[in-house]
Amino acid sequence: MTDPLSKAATATEIAGAVMSGKVKAAAVIDATLKRIEAAEPTINAFTDVVAARARKRAAEIDAGLHRGPLLGVPFAVKNLFDIAGLPTRAGSKINVDGPKAERDGALVRKLEAAGAILVGGLNMGEYAYDFTGENAHYGPSRNPHDPTRMSGGSSGGSGAAVAAGEVPLALGSDTNGSIRVPSSLCGLFGLKPTYGRLSRAGSFPFVDSFDHLGPIARSAEDLALSFDAMQGWDSDDPVCTDRPADPTLPRLVEGIDGLRIAIAGDYFAKGGEPEAFEAVATVAGALGATKTVVLPQAAAARAAAYVITAIEGAQLHLPRLRTRPQDFDPDTRERFMAGALLPGAWYVKAQRFRRQYRARVLRLFEEVDVILAPATPCTAPKLGQKMMTIGGVELPVRANLGVFTQPISFIGLPVAVAPLQRPGGPPIGVQLIAKPYNEQAALRVAAHLQKLGVAAAPPA
Amino acid sequence: MTDPLSKAATATEIAGAVMSGKVKAAAVIDATLKRIEAAEPTINAFTDVVAARARKRAAEIDAGLHRGPLLGVPFAVKNLFDIAGLPTRAGSKINVDGPKAERDGALVRKLEAAGAILVGGLNMGEYAYDFTGENAHYGPSRNPHDPTRMSGGSSGGSGAAVAAGEVPLALGSDTNGSIRVPSSLCGLFGLKPTYGRLSRAGSFPFVDSFDHLGPIARSAEDLALSFDAMQGWDSDDPVCTDRPADPTLPRLVEGIDGLRIAIAGDYFAKGGEPEAFEAVATVAGALGATKTVVLPQAAAARAAAYVITAIEGAQLHLPRLRTRPQDFDPDTRERFMAGALLPGAWYVKAQRFRRQYRARVLRLFEEVDVILAPATPCTAPKLGQKMMTIGGVELPVRANLGVFTQPISFIGLPVAVAPLQRPGGPPIGVQLIAKPYNEQAALRVAAHLQKLGVAAAPPA
Repeated sequence: MTDPLSKAATATEIAGAVMSGKVKAAAVIDATLKRIEAAEPTINAFTDVVAARARKRAAEIDAGLHRGPLLGVPFAVKNLFDIAGLPTRAGSKINVDGPKAERDGALVRKLEAAGAILVGGLNMGEYAYDFTGENAHYGPSRNPHDPTRMSGGSSGGSGAAVAAGEVPLALGSDTNGSIRVPSSLCGLFGLKPTYGRLSRAGSFPFVDSFDHLGPIARSAEDLALSFDAMQGWDSDDPVCTDRPADPTLPRLVEGIDGLRIAIAGDYFAKGGEPEAFEAVATVAGALGATKTVVLPQAAAARAAAYVITAIEGAQLHLPRLRTRPQDFDPDTRERFMAGALLPGAWYVKAQRFRRQYRARVLRLFEEVDVILAPATPCTAPKLGQKMMTIGGVELPVRANLGVFTQPISFIGLPVAVAPLQRPGGPPIGVQLIAKPYNEQAALRVAAHLQKLGVAAAPPA
Repeated sequence: MTDPLSKAATATEIAGAVMSGKVKAAAVIDATLKRIEAAEPTINAFTDVVAARARKRAAEIDAGLHRGPLLGVPFAVKNLFDIAGLPTRAGSKINVDGPKAERDGALVRKLEAAGAILVGGLNMGEYAYDFTGENAHYGPSRNPHDPTRMSGGSSGGSGAAVAAGEVPLALGSDTNGSIRVPSSLCGLFGLKPTYGRLSRAGSFPFVDSFDHLGPIARSAEDLALSFDAMQGWDSDDPVCTDRPADPTLPRLVEGIDGLRIAIAGDYFAKGGEPEAFEAVATVAGALGATKTVVLPQAAAARAAAYVITAIEGAQLHLPRLRTRPQDFDPDTRERFMAGALLPGAWYVKAQRFRRQYRARVLRLFEEVDVILAPATPCTAPKLGQKMMTIGGVELPVRANLGVFTQPISFIGLPVAVAPLQRPGGPPIGVQLIAKPYNEQAALRVAAHLQKLGVAAAPPA
């Protein structure tokens, strides 16, 4: 039994210990704040720690004022989520001068309604336009496996904080891969749910038409537990936000009986380092999956995702680009400026292609439930590394970390990432891709891989 | 009783006479083809007449092979509808070199399944990017009220053919006003249905996100009759396309009891000639409507409609602009080329505004069922006229004929046009605007105005 006060404890274990009275929420928060204090000089995952708020909430829980399946679980959120009383940074310097949030974002409220305790806001790539976890204003989030390496982005702080054992659960956002890339590079379980399934209220946007929010954790069960708590209408209606009285309800179907699992071929079987494909082969072998399916025109899908990202992102940021260009990270600014110049006809064409591509990919799910693909083309690059060589071709790191995630988020499919720890080397993740609203299938496969010992969080 | 072989006969009257055996379909088609032959040298409404096909179909009807509520009714379609065996011109020279249509467009099939008889394709503004009814390749459709004047566009041939009594019923398309403007300038009843309600299969597009198809006719009842026949799934399933055995089913609720009618103020009460507002006042007076409602940000809606039109239109035509620029009408080409250069960020902003504007306008319909507004800011301008003066301001004719229609089609609201004949002057129309899927309310008001003698088709 894991010590609920240790960095190895999962959300499920902590909640069980707090609910049973084995440990006080106040003790959990104390241990968490101490770990954050110890880790941060190296990891740099947090931009804001709300210690007083967390202690107050823990005291309320210990006084019996709250209940729920995540009782006493500390969590932190990418700093694009609103936290009442703080400006919503979204990784930028500009936003710090903006208004302070009046209330927490919808998913923060959902998790706290389920008994969890917010401890802070997490570092991220500026305005989420990033795959590295580096940030020109706040410094890079560092990979706990090797602090000279990238955490992955843009939810870099979310990946780093969980992998370092600072918190068992963090929320991130994923537009083109920003949950899945740090999950892969930090060796964690991550879930990018179906587009539209979790409320984005009270979060700073990037690309309206494919922004998603979701959790990163140390176990598949924690993904399921937190996902379950975050679903539903984002009102204050207690019928919707309060949890059922019985928090021991099973949330995951055990095993993978009846699930049809296939490997993504073609585009997803090339353009990466051997580690990426070895990870997929290991997972496929463990699951007995042999069939290959081809997502048609995945390369075009990635190109279209770029076009829409650049244009919607530029539209969102035009007022800031006009008034405070000098306060952007120059790299981010250039990407937005380029996006502002792209013709609308490209946008229309990309959106039109998207509908057709989505329809074609959805047809694959008539014959398969979960598709396996690499999460990243490589393990964590070094911080500051600009170029990498894949298959003899030199490519920019930042853009290409998302090569396998972009064609999936583009059409809003739910994806869980299962992390593989590699002896002597950095971890890497595998995407478990399901059809819309079938998060359960992806989570069942992730849980099964964890049970088999194939997928695991980094050793604490 | 109107002679069913005369140019004054409505579709309802012709169908009644054919169904009762009072007149043969062959005789109706003979009379129709003779009227087309006589009128065309002046009117120039038709680009294609399918005489042999129409005669064959009439013979089949007279042999008892078809039935339906439009039995024996001749109709013609804007030449962006597919007609089997003909290239789909869409008002262009380029399309004539394209493939011949393999089958009729969905709405043509619907009307023929209801017993109507297609007699030809109608002139239109090039690629529907037009409000005048002029065409650089095929010459202008001329206004039957005064052949030196514009028919209005882009469904100019549809308006001219019905107003000249060549056919009692024509189909057009309306993206920014292309059914409503010719209905107004030619003095006819027209219906632009709710966005998405009638199938666009087998028609040449312009702006995907607000292209609509609909009828132009000499009576409100004919609009209802044909609209009713065109609704529903565009399959060949006889359950869907065959008409019920009883074609005497009432299609229009009589009278306007219970309908709340208001006048569009602010934007819709200025920027036009006195005739436009006198027409609205006449209609309002006849209906006893006194309340005024304001569609918020209608001017911004029109601007956003322009942006989306230019960008979606340019995206559609880019391949032709690249390969055959010299074969466009230079005016149309310039509009498309300008659209191809507009930034995508504008498109995203326009689409975002559209959702907000739509939500605000829909709230008005909690307190009102039908909103009255001018259909055009003026009566038919002279052919070739480039500029007009409204309220002391000189404005380009082409763009400004749609000033009152654009903010309505932009959000897909159904609109019927009621035509007012003005002694000694050209006719003008009034828009009857309803909430989505409430075509019935607009058609009831149109029928009531016709019954009162306020609205009428031009004297035959």
